[in-house]
Amino acid sequence: MTAKPESHALPLDVERIRADFPLLARTVHGKPLIYFDNANTSQKPVSVIDAVDRHYREHNANVARAVHQLGEEATASYEGARDSLARFLNASSRNEVILTSGTTQSINLVAYSWALPRLKPGDAILTTVMEHHANIVPWQIVAERTGAVVKAAPIDTNGELIVEKFVEMLTPDVKLACVAHVSNVLGTVNPVRELARECRKRGIPLLVDGSQAAPHRPIDVQALGCDFYAVTGHKMLAPTGTGALWAKREHLESMPPFFGGGEMIREVRFDGTVFADPPHRFEAGTPNIAGFAGMTAAIDYLNGIGFDRLETYEQGLLAYATDALESVPGVRIFGRAAEKEPVISFLIEGAHANDMATLLDLEGVAVRSGHHCAHPLMQFFGVPATLRASLAFYNTRAEVDGFIRAIEKVRKLLL
Amino acid sequence: MTAKPESHALPLDVERIRADFPLLARTVHGKPLIYFDNANTSQKPVSVIDAVDRHYREHNANVARAVHQLGEEATASYEGARDSLARFLNASSRNEVILTSGTTQSINLVAYSWALPRLKPGDAILTTVMEHHANIVPWQIVAERTGAVVKAAPIDTNGELIVEKFVEMLTPDVKLACVAHVSNVLGTVNPVRELARECRKRGIPLLVDGSQAAPHRPIDVQALGCDFYAVTGHKMLAPTGTGALWAKREHLESMPPFFGGGEMIREVRFDGTVFADPPHRFEAGTPNIAGFAGMTAAIDYLNGIGFDRLETYEQGLLAYATDALESVPGVRIFGRAAEKEPVISFLIEGAHANDMATLLDLEGVAVRSGHHCAHPLMQFFGVPATLRASLAFYNTRAEVDGFIRAIEKVRKLLL
Repeated sequence: MTAKPESHALPLDVERIRADFPLLARTVHGKPLIYFDNANTSQKPVSVIDAVDRHYREHNANVARAVHQLGEEATASYEGARDSLARFLNASSRNEVILTSGTTQSINLVAYSWALPRLKPGDAILTTVMEHHANIVPWQIVAERTGAVVKAAPIDTNGELIVEKFVEMLTPDVKLACVAHVSNVLGTVNPVRELARECRKRGIPLLVDGSQAAPHRPIDVQALGCDFYAVTGHKMLAPTGTGALWAKREHLESMPPFFGGGEMIREVRFDGTVFADPPHRFEAGTPNIAGFAGMTAAIDYLNGIGFDRLETYEQGLLAYATDALESVPGVRIFGRAAEKEPVISFLIEGAHANDMATLLDLEGVAVRSGHHCAHPLMQFFGVPATLRASLAFYNTRAEVDGFIRAIEKVRKLLL
Repeated sequence: MTAKPESHALPLDVERIRADFPLLARTVHGKPLIYFDNANTSQKPVSVIDAVDRHYREHNANVARAVHQLGEEATASYEGARDSLARFLNASSRNEVILTSGTTQSINLVAYSWALPRLKPGDAILTTVMEHHANIVPWQIVAERTGAVVKAAPIDTNGELIVEKFVEMLTPDVKLACVAHVSNVLGTVNPVRELARECRKRGIPLLVDGSQAAPHRPIDVQALGCDFYAVTGHKMLAPTGTGALWAKREHLESMPPFFGGGEMIREVRFDGTVFADPPHRFEAGTPNIAGFAGMTAAIDYLNGIGFDRLETYEQGLLAYATDALESVPGVRIFGRAAEKEPVISFLIEGAHANDMATLLDLEGVAVRSGHHCAHPLMQFFGVPATLRASLAFYNTRAEVDGFIRAIEKVRKLLL
């Protein structure tokens, strides 16, 4: 059923890839679906869906707790996902990869286990104006409980981080810096390697929210030089409820556990409990075992395509879509970074974002409208909401054409 | 494909039910599988597997964030799972049900959001000697950070909570009491209604770990009279990475958020963030949407059987298995509570639990050996480990017979 992407000749055979994604064949309101909401969640190839299905039909058992055959199969699958993620992120050790329920849990783990015990009044956490709430609110919670403060580095009107300002703000009170690798609203790719270098010079750990980067570009945490890197499965073809936190071993070893529960301890006594080593110290309870079977399949699928081909294709599609959108009268595009992933936020003059999205839906076009969990960024641009078209390698120029036709139709209805 | 359990005549048509569980047809080491590790995780009926599959093929989108058709379908499915769980637990409002990744997250949510901000030196949390680590370690983490202490109510040699001791220990320093509804090792059913009454008299909230109860008996949180009730999906036919916390509205409204992230806020500003009302305040980030599609199917399946028939069948099977096991020379059964769910912990004199489990696996029998994430209980019984056979409504007397034959064979090999 599933195409073997590695057998494709360059360039990408998009029609063959689309056949791997059952949902793309759907209609919505009688129209063929144009799914441009990939930054919200990606669709899943058959190989991922089947990996979950097969887990439940053939290998379902709990992990790390049973000596029986099924338990060993489930454990091998789960630990295999850790190996896949370690290679995917180029971690120097599989023990630096903690399996989580998604980026939100990954970042909150750092907030509760790394930051909360360390920070004190007078300390600061530096983040940026373009962050998703998942990279703001956990730090606000830590700040409130510790007396620290959260500061936000500014961006320019192109939607690029002002790097010199960020570096200026790396003052001695800053105990942690937190940036998105790629903005979920603007598509801006932040210069993480450069930021990490500046942080390292000052002994400030850098956390990177990789949610929007991992689906689009190869990640090499060692080359980036950061300290923490968080990813979420559901945006990169994998099942919902899966994710990972990569962290340098020295940090993990210094961190107390986050969740208490089964399988994260060596010994529990009422007069004192001894915790397991990383990564298991941070993985209390039964994880999303079936979901991680799907995570391995998702990574295999992405690797089968190859990020070189994927990036070439997506960048071409982004340029095509941006050009096409610019031809629409009254369009305003938010985010003009020199380096962007295929995310376009925009508004049409005189039309409310929500009305546009609702009418686009009737044309079969799925885009997101709203604040995109990025209120401070909306405040920066002085708008309550934008429309966001976010593309994936399985989208096509024909879909972009359909999207533009739908916008023109809807625009006439509204204006 | 899936049998409609509601059409079964009484008693349970187990063979027809078994046909709904694909994994039960598996062989292990060339032998038909006898899966007696249900307290570790349950197997899944086709209706649950298909619900997850169908979600990805037809309805996959993110929840609560998109106005488009797919987003509305995904949101309806996710919020439908909340409705199902609210009815399943007999919550007085769906807003009292927080969807989590499992019991471990549910209990840690109470630990971090309810207990951590409240407790102080001199305070105590009362739990019991029979708890799973998930209902001990979170309280130890809270105690360590707040200066409070964790106390454990004793049990007797039958594996029953000594209720009068528990009540005696409800002294004014106790700010929270935490008990399992059903012991994962012993099967003991704790008298939660009575414990809740005693707690209420003293104004002490009671948290109940319902992981091992929900798969076996109807849960009515209002009748029980507790304050918090935690369940996990994967033990009750639902997908891995799903669970819920029910809590009285008054508690939820008084609790700050746990995870920071998307969809749990009204407004985020660097000068102050306003959180959403419960339950969304506690559901940051993209949840396990597909898993909760399966949760609804799992609850439908259990309701289709009906807990009256399920309990009658399981209690008969437990009595049959207990009688049969007692005929094995040198057997020692742990847990002789008057009211038990179908869990039997045992040892064979002179045989190590792990060796037994390994050899039983070669006979196709999956049981758990070890401490079952319950070190203090093992310490109470003075053993490092037990074997545990945990049954479900899809197990049969023929499987019990096979299990006993396997034990006798393995016993001869080891002794």
